[in-house]
Amino acid sequence: PLIALLPGDGIGPEVVAEARRVLDALDLGLTFEEAPVGGAAYETLGHPLPISTLDLAEQADAILFGAVGDARFDGVERSLRPEQAVLGLRKELNLFANLRPAKLFPGLEDASALRPEVAGAIDLVIVRELTGDVYFGEKGRRETIEGLREGYDLMAYDEIEVRRIARVGFETARGRTGKLCSVDKANVLETSQLWRDVVIETAADYPDVALTHMYVDNAAMQLVRNPGQFDTIVTGNLFGDILSDQASMCAGSIGMLPSASLGEAIGGRVKGLYEPIHGSAPDIAGQGKANPCATILSAAMMLRHSLDRADMADRIEAAVTAALVGGARTADLGGALSTSQMGDAVLARL
Amino acid sequence: PLIALLPGDGIGPEVVAEARRVLDALDLGLTFEEAPVGGAAYETLGHPLPISTLDLAEQADAILFGAVGDARFDGVERSLRPEQAVLGLRKELNLFANLRPAKLFPGLEDASALRPEVAGAIDLVIVRELTGDVYFGEKGRRETIEGLREGYDLMAYDEIEVRRIARVGFETARGRTGKLCSVDKANVLETSQLWRDVVIETAADYPDVALTHMYVDNAAMQLVRNPGQFDTIVTGNLFGDILSDQASMCAGSIGMLPSASLGEAIGGRVKGLYEPIHGSAPDIAGQGKANPCATILSAAMMLRHSLDRADMADRIEAAVTAALVGGARTADLGGALSTSQMGDAVLARL
Ligand SMILES: CC(C)[C@H](C(=O)O)[C@@H](O)C(=O)O
Ligand SMILES: CC(C)[C@H](C(=O)O)[C@@H](O)C(=O)O
Repeated sequence: PLIALLPGDGIGPEVVAEARRVLDALDLGLTFEEAPVGGAAYETLGHPLPISTLDLAEQADAILFGAVGDARFDGVERSLRPEQAVLGLRKELNLFANLRPAKLFPGLEDASALRPEVAGAIDLVIVRELTGDVYFGEKGRRETIEGLREGYDLMAYDEIEVRRIARVGFETARGRTGKLCSVDKANVLETSQLWRDVVIETAADYPDVALTHMYVDNAAMQLVRNPGQFDTIVTGNLFGDILSDQASMCAGSIGMLPSASLGEAIGGRVKGLYEPIHGSAPDIAGQGKANPCATILSAAMMLRHSLDRADMADRIEAAVTAALVGGARTADLGGALSTSQMGDAVLARL
Repeated sequence: PLIALLPGDGIGPEVVAEARRVLDALDLGLTFEEAPVGGAAYETLGHPLPISTLDLAEQADAILFGAVGDARFDGVERSLRPEQAVLGLRKELNLFANLRPAKLFPGLEDASALRPEVAGAIDLVIVRELTGDVYFGEKGRRETIEGLREGYDLMAYDEIEVRRIARVGFETARGRTGKLCSVDKANVLETSQLWRDVVIETAADYPDVALTHMYVDNAAMQLVRNPGQFDTIVTGNLFGDILSDQASMCAGSIGMLPSASLGEAIGGRVKGLYEPIHGSAPDIAGQGKANPCATILSAAMMLRHSLDRADMADRIEAAVTAALVGGARTADLGGALSTSQMGDAVLARL
């Protein structure tokens, strides 16, 4: 299988290198090909998502992504900013389903701002729709009839978009504790009302899953008050962006959490892009301080979802847990290990 | 001055009654007139915001609002649901600025899911725009060209809408520690880019205020990680809905937090609607269990913002704090006082 490595900006290259070492050690016969993305690609090739990079991503069986973004590109026009690479890859590859597990790792009870007993109960997955919503609706600037500047973005979902992500939500819940919470703002938004209607229709195919609904403002409260109440959350692109970052911070360790962005299954295989949920952290880039675990765990998700090697995914996850239990800590976890030392600690437990 | 009392549904009447007792005790020559709103109004008059109620709200100098909403009305068509009363009042009265202070009260360190040292540092105000954004843009159902059901809602802001709420944000920050954080999603949304542009333009009039910008997903993380970093946050209607609920839960005591929804100052007076941030809590309605403090503190905000009696607002706030310090606790705070006993405890310290 061909793996596209897109390290990107900031700490991206450092953490992707460690994940690569872990994959190499497993000797799975993977082929790696690397391409520039984000600010790094804009600087060298004039575009954050060059055609050559997109081509590689399309050919690859899976993509391991680092991070993009740098304040240096804030002044660049929107369509050329690093973030556009992320949005472009999602849209072009039809990666509509974003899975973001959030749980507290053993030994990291002190890393969360939540009380240990509250944080310790976190073990959830957010299933976020990734190619629709207000992210991709018609948008622009225009003049109002009074001659004022106005900015606008159309929020919209059609029933097919909702149904396919709802299915991912139900399937995910079924593989866990069978509890699915759909988050929307149906008391105000028509988009959300359609969302809720279609989720309820889809539920007919999953009688074994217990479905509940929650308004997004309440969900943001409940994720602080009692995150342990959630198992699987399914929600739209915008709400998912906010809630998944919030949930990951509740779990305390932004340097520990992986994510998968998946397309439709084609011939039993799912194309996916795998990346840590953290950003490019320009402030610590190049210093060997970044925690590589989120990227290593993203590689594990890749083995599970795109390469049909759940056994190897389990092995990596167990090695990360063992390293933590053994006391391995990078700076973000209050320790002193460098990025590659943390990689070593995981490799030693593979 | 004429105060419109709109108790609404669930625990609304109980908590408004206690706030009224506190106002009465201050002997300020206020006249009170009550009107039905929400589900209560729908049941008796066929509409959640009857004309007679809207008329009273328009004539009044200020409105003290309880809460609306009840799952019994979930099946009712959207335009007649209890929540429409809230949206209707905001829009009809042009109450564009929602102020939501969130702070941890002394003695309530244990009420938050956050660690005491994190929660204890919370002392912020969220300034939320309340009459624009995706809440009030064109919305509906339609068919796509493929014949699919689609729901849509237009997100939009024009420069006047942004400037006036930005001013409220800067003024609020100026009256506090001089730090304003504007929250948007300018890396994805054109509405947010216009928002950011106009906030930056407005900053020219407030050289004494330190302005920063944050993406909404990061803001949701930071409100968990280190909420003490914020003083004043200004944001749009949708993001404000989510973040203000999240922030209030971080402060631990949803039963303690008031809010003000303000219009433009006319002749030095600001028309405002004052309400607790909690909802109608149908599960405990009529049992005398609700905490009246959020509504009592909303009455204090009313005195400060609409009735030019900051002195009396201070008195109420001091009485609430003293009651807490004295150990007064309703069930939500882990105590056993009833709604009216908590009212008594505050009255005793006025
Ligand atoms: C970089 C940005 C466009 C992106 C998003 O908003 O989706 C990021 O926040 C994420 O969650 O992956
Ligand atoms: C009831 C609902 C329409 C309302 C809103 O979303 O604004 C509420 O959540 C609030 O924050 O006041």
